[in-house]
Amino acid sequence: MKIAVDAMGGDYAPEEVVKGVEAARDRYSQLEFQVFGDEAAIQNCLQSSDRITLVPTSEVITMGEEPVKAVKQKKDSSLVQAAQAVANGEADAVFSAGNTGAILTAAIFIVGRIKGVDRPALASALPAYGGPHKSFVLMDMGANAENKAAHLYQYSILGSFYAKEVLGYDHPRVRLLNNGGEEDKGDDVHKAAHQLMKQSGFVNFLGNVEAREILEGTADVVVADGFSGNTALKAIEGTALTTMGQLKTAITAGGLRGKLGALFLKPALKSLKNEMNFNEQGGAVVLGVKAPVVKAHGSSKAVAVANAMGQIQTMVQEDLTGKSAAFIAENRAALKGKKE
Amino acid sequence: MKIAVDAMGGDYAPEEVVKGVEAARDRYSQLEFQVFGDEAAIQNCLQSSDRITLVPTSEVITMGEEPVKAVKQKKDSSLVQAAQAVANGEADAVFSAGNTGAILTAAIFIVGRIKGVDRPALASALPAYGGPHKSFVLMDMGANAENKAAHLYQYSILGSFYAKEVLGYDHPRVRLLNNGGEEDKGDDVHKAAHQLMKQSGFVNFLGNVEAREILEGTADVVVADGFSGNTALKAIEGTALTTMGQLKTAITAGGLRGKLGALFLKPALKSLKNEMNFNEQGGAVVLGVKAPVVKAHGSSKAVAVANAMGQIQTMVQEDLTGKSAAFIAENRAALKGKKE
Repeated sequence: MKIAVDAMGGDYAPEEVVKGVEAARDRYSQLEFQVFGDEAAIQNCLQSSDRITLVPTSEVITMGEEPVKAVKQKKDSSLVQAAQAVANGEADAVFSAGNTGAILTAAIFIVGRIKGVDRPALASALPAYGGPHKSFVLMDMGANAENKAAHLYQYSILGSFYAKEVLGYDHPRVRLLNNGGEEDKGDDVHKAAHQLMKQSGFVNFLGNVEAREILEGTADVVVADGFSGNTALKAIEGTALTTMGQLKTAITAGGLRGKLGALFLKPALKSLKNEMNFNEQGGAVVLGVKAPVVKAHGSSKAVAVANAMGQIQTMVQEDLTGKSAAFIAENRAALKGKKE
Repeated sequence: MKIAVDAMGGDYAPEEVVKGVEAARDRYSQLEFQVFGDEAAIQNCLQSSDRITLVPTSEVITMGEEPVKAVKQKKDSSLVQAAQAVANGEADAVFSAGNTGAILTAAIFIVGRIKGVDRPALASALPAYGGPHKSFVLMDMGANAENKAAHLYQYSILGSFYAKEVLGYDHPRVRLLNNGGEEDKGDDVHKAAHQLMKQSGFVNFLGNVEAREILEGTADVVVADGFSGNTALKAIEGTALTTMGQLKTAITAGGLRGKLGALFLKPALKSLKNEMNFNEQGGAVVLGVKAPVVKAHGSSKAVAVANAMGQIQTMVQEDLTGKSAAFIAENRAALKGKKE
């Protein structure tokens, strides 16, 4: 099993990416890597080339670049070449910690959409504070600014496959992020999507979920349109950070008493901080394309990179994309839904 | 100045509503109240009828009722009668802690829209953790499931008037809640709304804001479509609650050490809890109707009710609706915007 790695994406590239690849190589005996990027820079931090092939590339897509233009023009960039390796059948999956828009563009236009999927989406596992499982899948986190009901229905299928094959949940519980619990809530797109999921024989649909309950573990897959999925995710991250910041402020304002309390609570506060740090919970996955494409957070260090490789291994082993594609091929007519 | 009070709405009605009205009467010497509701129940908890007129009504709109139907059918409900008093010119503003949808419906169809405002919105002041001011206005929090660009532009005007006249901010800084900072971000509605605000000679528009930064005080008015405004608000509330819950869990898991730490930190944790309790930060306001209509949280106790009365007093004193309406009348053509 071979993973094509964009070694030049992310705040700590290529050092931490290469370190992460080596850690994953030592941890997972079946993994091989094609590492794309600046030859000298990678050689400089690579300890051993066992099961790692370095593929030199001459260009880098940076964080601020306009995604579609960058992917089109920088043919010899580490990201484009890594995606091309998967398209050519030389590798099984793509990893990058770089420009999210460029990764999505490369996934859709180079790796290619699964036939029958209109709009691939960005999915991520977030912590569930309650319910039977430790995490749930949120998608679309923002690959799309606008969605139709049929897209949301397709997400409920893709998300169910991910929850089942990668997270190992039987009959994953699916909910639709909406502005109310009742089935007549939301705009026309959400009303129609609700009906498509409800009438589906495949999706284990439990109805709408409001953003207030999103972290409570009442669903294994939360389906959202890209705009509000992105809004919810960012509001969650921002509020968690703000609350932690306010806690610090309140402790500091408490003077000596606050300092003593903080000393006693140090382990508790540290575990809370880890719990609320959504960035280290693994990579985001582009679902709906022909091979696993995983995007780690830009600030990923070696451990996060290695964890993402483990996640990719599971996706390839379980043939996530193959199973999703086969199901979608068999059910294409139904999946087109009523266009809204 | 007279406030029409729906005494029967909310979890603790009528006791806490009546107590709050009496507290406000004692606090604000210029306020008079018309209190609508069950005569015996109100008499039962009313201490003194000084500046308080009891208007008996025979019906109550409950929390679960379908709003439009309830407002249409329950003509003698405390809410409908309170709104009717404002429509008839007998009172200057409406207060209720009841069914949000019904309050919106009564505001729009009984109090009436300001000419030129297409879709009144629900606005609320949320805490700003950073920036020059202690709070900012978020609107629409969910009065509408779907918005056009012109609606969002109208919100930027209505929100600016609220921030200036009620919160006292000069040149309120306005931002548009969007899925990215650049002006070409978002769907067609948000792109068009961005341009309308940017080209406006009146709005002090500073561009987009992402939900991650929404609590950081980078804007005095955050304009959102009702669907994503609702999503952001609920995600913020849910995450704050979850974080506080996780903190408690982490402290408990810390055993004796955790308990000691919590003891020392008690004042700090209490102040944090108050800081993150968005429900007690005053009432939500229906903006875009002909008189102030304020909706307090259903769980409001007397103090929150009395605070909301102070907020209403400022709105009436500063003639918020009159000033907004006059501006909109003068600029109606421009405010219609490009319909998207």
